Amino acid sequence: MSNPSAAKTSPGNFFEDFRLGQEIRHATPRTVTTGDVAVYQGIFGPRFAVQSSDVFARKIGYRQAPLDDLLVFHVVFGKTVPDVSLNAVANLGYADCRFLKPVYPGATLNAVSEVIGLRENANRKTGIVYVRSRGFDETGDVVLDYVRWVMVRKRDENAPAPPEKVPELAKAVEPAQLGAACPKIDAAAYDNVLAGSPHRFGGYKVGEKIDHLDGITVEEAEHMIATRLYQNTARIHFNQFAESKGRFGHRLIYGGHAISLARALSFNGLGNAFHIAAINGGRHVAPLFAGLTVFAWSEVLATVELPGRRDVGALRLRTIATKDRACPDFPFKSGEEYDPAVILDLDYWVLLPR
Amino acid sequence: MSNPSAAKTSPGNFFEDFRLGQEIRHATPRTVTTGDVAVYQGIFGPRFAVQSSDVFARKIGYRQAPLDDLLVFHVVFGKTVPDVSLNAVANLGYADCRFLKPVYPGATLNAVSEVIGLRENANRKTGIVYVRSRGFDETGDVVLDYVRWVMVRKRDENAPAPPEKVPELAKAVEPAQLGAACPKIDAAAYDNVLAGSPHRFGGYKVGEKIDHLDGITVEEAEHMIATRLYQNTARIHFNQFAESKGRFGHRLIYGGHAISLARALSFNGLGNAFHIAAINGGRHVAPLFAGLTVFAWSEVLATVELPGRRDVGALRLRTIATKDRACPDFPFKSGEEYDPAVILDLDYWVLLPR
Amino acid sequence: MSNPSAAKTSPGNFFEDFRLGQEIRHATPRTVTTGDVAVYQGIFGPRFAVQSSDVFARKIGYRQAPLDDLLVFHVVFGKTVPDVSLNAVANLGYADCRFLKPVYPGATLNAVSEVIGLRENANRKTGIVYVRSRGFDETGDVVLDYVRWVMVRKRDENAPAPPEKVPELAKAVEPAQLGAACPKIDAAAYDNVLAGSPHRFGGYKVGEKIDHLDGITVEEAEHMIATRLYQNTARIHFNQFAESKGRFGHRLIYGGHAISLARALSFNGLGNAFHIAAINGGRHVAPLFAGLTVFAWSEVLATVELPGRRDVGALRLRTIATKDRACPDFPFKSGEEYDPAVILDLDYWVLLPR
Repeated sequence: MSNPSAAKTSPGNFFEDFRLGQEIRHATPRTVTTGDVAVYQGIFGPRFAVQSSDVFARKIGYRQAPLDDLLVFHVVFGKTVPDVSLNAVANLGYADCRFLKPVYPGATLNAVSEVIGLRENANRKTGIVYVRSRGFDETGDVVLDYVRWVMVRKRDENAPAPPEKVPELAKAVEPAQLGAACPKIDAAAYDNVLAGSPHRFGGYKVGEKIDHLDGITVEEAEHMIATRLYQNTARIHFNQFAESKGRFGHRLIYGGHAISLARALSFNGLGNAFHIAAINGGRHVAPLFAGLTVFAWSEVLATVELPGRRDVGALRLRTIATKDRACPDFPFKSGEEYDPAVILDLDYWVLLPR
Repeated sequence: MSNPSAAKTSPGNFFEDFRLGQEIRHATPRTVTTGDVAVYQGIFGPRFAVQSSDVFARKIGYRQAPLDDLLVFHVVFGKTVPDVSLNAVANLGYADCRFLKPVYPGATLNAVSEVIGLRENANRKTGIVYVRSRGFDETGDVVLDYVRWVMVRKRDENAPAPPEKVPELAKAVEPAQLGAACPKIDAAAYDNVLAGSPHRFGGYKVGEKIDHLDGITVEEAEHMIATRLYQNTARIHFNQFAESKGRFGHRLIYGGHAISLARALSFNGLGNAFHIAAINGGRHVAPLFAGLTVFAWSEVLATVELPGRRDVGALRLRTIATKDRACPDFPFKSGEEYDPAVILDLDYWVLLPR
Repeated sequence: MSNPSAAKTSPGNFFEDFRLGQEIRHATPRTVTTGDVAVYQGIFGPRFAVQSSDVFARKIGYRQAPLDDLLVFHVVFGKTVPDVSLNAVANLGYADCRFLKPVYPGATLNAVSEVIGLRENANRKTGIVYVRSRGFDETGDVVLDYVRWVMVRKRDENAPAPPEKVPELAKAVEPAQLGAACPKIDAAAYDNVLAGSPHRFGGYKVGEKIDHLDGITVEEAEHMIATRLYQNTARIHFNQFAESKGRFGHRLIYGGHAISLARALSFNGLGNAFHIAAINGGRHVAPLFAGLTVFAWSEVLATVELPGRRDVGALRLRTIATKDRACPDFPFKSGEEYDPAVILDLDYWVLLPR
């Protein structure tokens, strides 16, 4: 018989499959539990007290220890992969990423994306797809909202180009938009010693650079376990048989893995930066492979008070992650060129108690 | 003093230790939690919505998201290893494996096996032991019932052969026996989009073959973590010092690992096959080692309606898993010989919403 | 601008930073969950029924399955690392380690250490720091109390030596001090078959040696996942880029990892030794690296009844762990020298039902 199975499996969407304004409801809904928290803890080792201790979290005003913000990000992101980026050549950027509601163990997350921009590349082989993705909890509330854009292959080079639309994206999330996922906290009840750092919001200055000192070597098992935890199906992370003949010769590590590593490393120097309120932009400057060791440093780009809030303040940070290179001299760019060791350039807002 | 420790450790049972009709209550009872679910998720990456989301599961009629059927299988199976197969040369087959009750996080599982067949091999060095194993939950209900047979070494070649008894085993579980572990579901409330596939029971045809497309490379840490999660103590999975001088030169990966990988891969093409109702038979055709990449394809062997049920229908599937070989051409057998890349030939029933 | 970041990151304490009598409250409080239990299960594979099954634990008198004693130990120990041993050259020993209260999933642990001894070494480059560390749960109860001593680098060789004080430490915890973390159990309700061993307290004799038979090969991903689960930040475990040029050329595996492996292996021969009541002393005789296979054997040093308790008795054990060497001949010392395969010499008390 003729084989109908091609109709059963999903090859993912190609550039010409996307339409401006299209809304994509993603599979698979996911109840996130303390089990996921533990696996995430084992893979990355975060030490922020708010996410680590129910008692600490309650004392300052949370219902209990919330999920790590990046675990929420990765779970929501993972849902978008089968529909948005299975045929991506490159994940080009993030913007306007805002965490909007604390997520606690037991929440069920799902995700919806809207196509907000399309631009075919001159070579006609690929195009750029801009999507706004939203993560929802089981009550229907938005917990996360972000834009990303990816370069996606065309199935057919001759498919006509869609009308070009490149969305305007703010360079940074406005301070007034920060903090929705952080309840009003009791800063007096926040125990610096238990949290592991004496430095609160007021202790940081614009231009200050912090070397986070430590390095973490990544193993194949680790990044694959993490990426499957998020149900992220991008093939390049899992299939050494194919990748051994591919672009890099290795499985490519999910870009979000480097973000989580950099965040965990940043505890040493930013121990009270307990919440990522927003991500302004992120660039995966170079690929990361198993066997390499990740380091990170951060620069304070801005310090702002949040309108109407005296409990927390926000730092805008640039965190740079490197591979196989310590960061005492804050490697970054020379001219337009990144230092060859740099793998991640992340621009984001964190909250600290005042 | 003479050393009595040999009496303290268990060398496992040898062929001559088994008696027909013998009942073996296995150690160790195990409370399975959302933590186990998360570790399993990280190792295999399943995406079936029913097991992933409490909300989705409740909406169609489950109390909450049930455990992955294969996690239940592996935990029950693991208990039988110290008593049944510690001295096994080979795990020869499974039959009549039925999932009988949904298992939710918090359940405590234990296992009992009955020796239902014995046959010494002509070489007098080994014999085949047939056991029917049952997994129970804390209420005493049977959640899983299956037969397996293993080739077990004799301690003493001269030990007399037991009376030979080879049980008759059905080639397949009857449709009337399927579905006990699946509550009546509300198929109208089953959301295809969230589940990730538009294809329900009626969309599959006998003879249809589906290449599941993706490949997953297995790491040593992964299969050992999974196998220890099940408290499976078979030595060949864990001890590289011994295995480096052994039959393969490598730790042998637990056969059930390949089953779980194939099941997770099968989501791409069988996304609504949310429940394994029964396993008719399974053959571990060739060993799997770390570093190899597993692929899978499936063929629909039968489609049946379940007596008295209009909510779900059953597909009988053959799923073939391979190592380091993609499956666009459905590698299987030439004559009696399996394609050298094939590692698993699994015959089982899955349920899909109608 | 001058860079103030050195003030933000913690380089850890150096020898001259410690003062006798100093009390150190450690970061980070940690709510331990069934998720942590599952990750621990996956990494080590313990099979003691009390910790594995809520039903079994309740039947004999626990509220539910308690956490593995060593998971509690590692979490408490991990908190002390950033303050006590980040600049340690060597972890020299443990003493007087007592488990004082059962810890259940959901408990929040934190830790406080007191400096109870200081002794500068003759070379003036290092000194020995003795700390008594206590782990507390969220009610403020002490769950664990132990002494350890570490050799710590000086920041400045010329810093004056503190007054020398070497605490007197008992060679072993007294039997009267054992059992606080074990509720009165119903020994008649303890099911030997489910527990996996017929040998209770009365079945062991002083001088008896038990080869635990099995071997477990350790992978880099495994020890790093475990060590991050405990939020242990000792750099030598995680950074291959630095360690490739370091003392060993490899990441050094956390000493506690070998203890947990030996404990899990000891199930085969000590299946009813369900609780570690105290650790009298422990020595990490040689380093352990990924790729090596750990074996273990135990000797019964003493058997004691506990004052006022007829439910359980205590065995004092020496458990020896080795690397890449099976233990049928109980490798230990020739003269003062340990067998070169030995990595761990642990002296501790376990409880068994009578």
